[in-house]
Amino acid sequence: MSDATQAVKSWLAAFGAAIERGDHAAAAALFDEDCYWRDLVSFTWNIKTMEGRAAIRAMLDAVAAQVRPSAWAIDGEASAADGVTEAWITFETAVARGKGHIRLKGDKCWTLLTTMVELKGFEEPRGAARPKGVEHGALQDRKNWAERRAEHADTFGISEQPYVLIVGGGQGGIGLGARLKRLGVPALIVEKNERPGDSWRKRYKSLCLHDPVWYDHMPYLPFPDHWPVFSPKDKIGDWLEMYTRVMELDYWGSTECKSAKYDEAAGTWEVQVERGGKPLTLRPTQLVLATGMSAVPNVPHLPGAGSFKGEQHHSSRHGGGEAYRGKKCVVIGSNNSAHDICADLWEHGADVTMVQRSSTHIARSDSLMELALGGLYSEEAIRNGIDHHKADLIFASVPYKIMAGFQIPVYEEMKKRDAELYARLEKAGFMLDFGDDGSGLFMKYLRRGSGYYIDVGASELVANGQVKLKSGVAIERIKEHSILFADGTELPADLIVYATGYGSMNGWAARLISQEVADKVGKCWGLGSDTRKDPGPWEGELRNMWKPTRQPALWFHGGNLHQSRHYSQFLSLQLKARKEGIPTPVYGLAEVHHLS
Amino acid sequence: MSDATQAVKSWLAAFGAAIERGDHAAAAALFDEDCYWRDLVSFTWNIKTMEGRAAIRAMLDAVAAQVRPSAWAIDGEASAADGVTEAWITFETAVARGKGHIRLKGDKCWTLLTTMVELKGFEEPRGAARPKGVEHGALQDRKNWAERRAEHADTFGISEQPYVLIVGGGQGGIGLGARLKRLGVPALIVEKNERPGDSWRKRYKSLCLHDPVWYDHMPYLPFPDHWPVFSPKDKIGDWLEMYTRVMELDYWGSTECKSAKYDEAAGTWEVQVERGGKPLTLRPTQLVLATGMSAVPNVPHLPGAGSFKGEQHHSSRHGGGEAYRGKKCVVIGSNNSAHDICADLWEHGADVTMVQRSSTHIARSDSLMELALGGLYSEEAIRNGIDHHKADLIFASVPYKIMAGFQIPVYEEMKKRDAELYARLEKAGFMLDFGDDGSGLFMKYLRRGSGYYIDVGASELVANGQVKLKSGVAIERIKEHSILFADGTELPADLIVYATGYGSMNGWAARLISQEVADKVGKCWGLGSDTRKDPGPWEGELRNMWKPTRQPALWFHGGNLHQSRHYSQFLSLQLKARKEGIPTPVYGLAEVHHLS
Repeated sequence: MSDATQAVKSWLAAFGAAIERGDHAAAAALFDEDCYWRDLVSFTWNIKTMEGRAAIRAMLDAVAAQVRPSAWAIDGEASAADGVTEAWITFETAVARGKGHIRLKGDKCWTLLTTMVELKGFEEPRGAARPKGVEHGALQDRKNWAERRAEHADTFGISEQPYVLIVGGGQGGIGLGARLKRLGVPALIVEKNERPGDSWRKRYKSLCLHDPVWYDHMPYLPFPDHWPVFSPKDKIGDWLEMYTRVMELDYWGSTECKSAKYDEAAGTWEVQVERGGKPLTLRPTQLVLATGMSAVPNVPHLPGAGSFKGEQHHSSRHGGGEAYRGKKCVVIGSNNSAHDICADLWEHGADVTMVQRSSTHIARSDSLMELALGGLYSEEAIRNGIDHHKADLIFASVPYKIMAGFQIPVYEEMKKRDAELYARLEKAGFMLDFGDDGSGLFMKYLRRGSGYYIDVGASELVANGQVKLKSGVAIERIKEHSILFADGTELPADLIVYATGYGSMNGWAARLISQEVADKVGKCWGLGSDTRKDPGPWEGELRNMWKPTRQPALWFHGGNLHQSRHYSQFLSLQLKARKEGIPTPVYGLAEVHHLS
Repeated sequence: MSDATQAVKSWLAAFGAAIERGDHAAAAALFDEDCYWRDLVSFTWNIKTMEGRAAIRAMLDAVAAQVRPSAWAIDGEASAADGVTEAWITFETAVARGKGHIRLKGDKCWTLLTTMVELKGFEEPRGAARPKGVEHGALQDRKNWAERRAEHADTFGISEQPYVLIVGGGQGGIGLGARLKRLGVPALIVEKNERPGDSWRKRYKSLCLHDPVWYDHMPYLPFPDHWPVFSPKDKIGDWLEMYTRVMELDYWGSTECKSAKYDEAAGTWEVQVERGGKPLTLRPTQLVLATGMSAVPNVPHLPGAGSFKGEQHHSSRHGGGEAYRGKKCVVIGSNNSAHDICADLWEHGADVTMVQRSSTHIARSDSLMELALGGLYSEEAIRNGIDHHKADLIFASVPYKIMAGFQIPVYEEMKKRDAELYARLEKAGFMLDFGDDGSGLFMKYLRRGSGYYIDVGASELVANGQVKLKSGVAIERIKEHSILFADGTELPADLIVYATGYGSMNGWAARLISQEVADKVGKCWGLGSDTRKDPGPWEGELRNMWKPTRQPALWFHGGNLHQSRHYSQFLSLQLKARKEGIPTPVYGLAEVHHLS
């Protein structure tokens, strides 16, 4: 056994014993002064990072008697580098089995990750536990699979209520639906579009995923190994549609959710939907809003917008550049959608101007893949034994508090590597940034969900002037056929696209449930980093995502494909536990500091 | 290094060196007197087993100069048990990379398997070689994935001819289509049913796959690990439909192939099809009949059948028992379909009689899974590191000549384990067998493709008399409302199902091309074992399957899901090589001894 492995074993033994005898002070003392324990559902029935010994001790004081952790063990061998010893671990609680990760500095713990894998007695029926598929023997009037499926489709949501209603049938809702299906939790997904995947298909023509295939797998059924690095939108749409079908999800397309009301007494929601135009009431116990980070468009109220005689729409409604050949198009905004739409319009022969209102972080796709993602999500990672399951856990093992520090060197390197592009962009008048603290794209995504462009080609158009740039000048007003700027210049326009982003997901709660409930749960997303568009105080986790909110039985699910895949595991286990009546005392439910 | 590994390394070094210096006598002398070299395409551009040193030397004399094998190496460590040393090996030829398996007895080779993995310079674009999916940069008037797909669908088979036409869009045609797609060989699949999977959906209601999930994976995209052991027919239908779509196969449903003619001069086929009722001519270079083992129904010509006033049909047209409640149903035959249909009719409340004409091998599904398949295709196998890729190769490594010897002990054990069922069946008058030499189900499948029932419950109905049995008495004639037997008994019937099996696949060549071509290629399937329904002489491989036939550019593809998966690899490589103009001299094209 290596010294590193021995060190982890010793630490786990001491840690387990301290908790066992209720000596939480001793357990906390095994941590370094600078320490983090990130728990995904297994101890806290919450997604929570305890920062510092005091927070760790307080958590243990509150939960250890009920959680009753045990069987701490190292999984494989530990490794040591740069004074840090790392290892995978396993453990159990009274009700669950868990997997985790530990980093020691010397003989003290620096970071600990604990995640719930499965509830005892409610394991997913996979592998040797998979269903037989056929009932052997002869049974008079047996129903076959297709008949049972058809019968279920006729009754589910009608005479039989789902335990979980998932509003939104994009990748988030679908992935969560698949996990709940495997866990045997009756869940219904409702989606306003007709078919799964339509939310991708309906976007602008040139759209491809900006994240690479290794990052994008859905639960249980990974893409085959010839799948393109960046999935074209219609191809990922087809995959989602197929996935929904082979996973036997209960998915209602062409179904719009109109309103929802929580009946405290009954402990159920009353949800009004329109399915194929017909009104229907659903009464689920749990309500998940999986409408996506991009559900509530931000459209700025610009003076004179009502008088504009051309066409104007939010980026989410922009279908593609075909109709705008030779037209004067103005795209307001300078993040991902703005760049993609500018390029798409230019590719279709439009005259395009981008209006940049504030600085933007540009990261070239190739550089991002190699420098930021390559270690965890790439062919090279796979060759190194890091598949996406392992990668997800490694990524989760880095507490948000110290993540920026891990990210800054990546972007320092990127600045050097792509210096020439950055110089040309600045020369063209483009306002660049790398985040308030230079921590780059992923931290911006976590903090504010915006403020960057993954460059797949449009930056070249901006740098060389093929897409014109209007930068750093306020818009005075919209006129009938133009935009007037504060510096007196005027930009003729046949089309205005507002690529101005999206509001917090609780805006969807406001629209669907009530402003009161939206305010009660508060802002979604963001870490409280006290950087631009992510006001403090520090939260340590994404607000309201995949974890209990201040509104009983209301959950938010979303994020990119990686997050949806990984965190749907923990959301599904929380829902399963509630379904089965397993006590789920939530530790450290977050305070609400911001309404949106 | 273990002695076993050293023994294999030494053998490979000596073998490689002998071939290198053209000393094929020395190479052959490295084999045991009792020896087999099975080659899948890599040396012979054929599927062929060389039995004995002389055959091995003759093959090397004929092909070695062109094949130029090299780089023989052991892959991992060898293992030794019961006097046999086994190992995985890799090698190269002038044009390809190969994988193989070797068994030594002492320092001599007992069995050698060589298989082609990929053609050099034409590797499948997977893993790090996968396509990027998006062309980064801004390109005016670019076409996106969906547009290119739509354009291709409009032209492929119309203005642009497929290199390969696959007739039959069941699992065989679909799996082969997927392999050809990855290899970049333009292939079109035509299928008379509307949708992929319909050939399963349209069968009788209670049908589930008789083979377990571990055996049934399609290429590239394995089932998720919760997939049922025995897929219900509609579920596998859905999987095939989804698979066809996400693999982007060119698949024409509702398209019937009417006739085909080979133009020797042009080196292309002229194939008449009706697509959605409209006639169309296709001109592929290669024609693959993937119409399945079960394509040409055998219907016995029973005297008086024309006068029968009830309903009569072949088992392939039997849709299910719903319509026959309370009806008198007679099923002629006693193999898989006969048993399944009897059970299905009984489950629907029909009065059912099975007419057994000759003895049948019964293998209980559970026993078969555990005793016959479990070592290679099961959760236990997976735990032992044997996934289906490895299992396919292990299975392929056993030459057919000695396979029966491997199988007999399995069925000896089965006889003991299920003695009580067998005794009760015999008591009920059922005629049992275990194959001419007691080698059981899989050998029967290889030799004649019939003669057995995998018992999933119907045997109990036969044993206990709920399905009545008429056994060993010839049918005299069919009357208007009954069947008259040679012993004078008469069986009233409202329905007669002919579960009387299928003819050789070359019957499909007769129907589609000509009797002349059907006779030229001769019987498909069977090993020439000189057992019942598998007349000699010994062939050593399945006749005409997945390999060159006596008709240029005509190929037969089929078999169960395992065979379709594994052998489609070798058929696709043969087609790819021809497409790319790589010389493919066929060694040992089989003689034709039987016409059907």
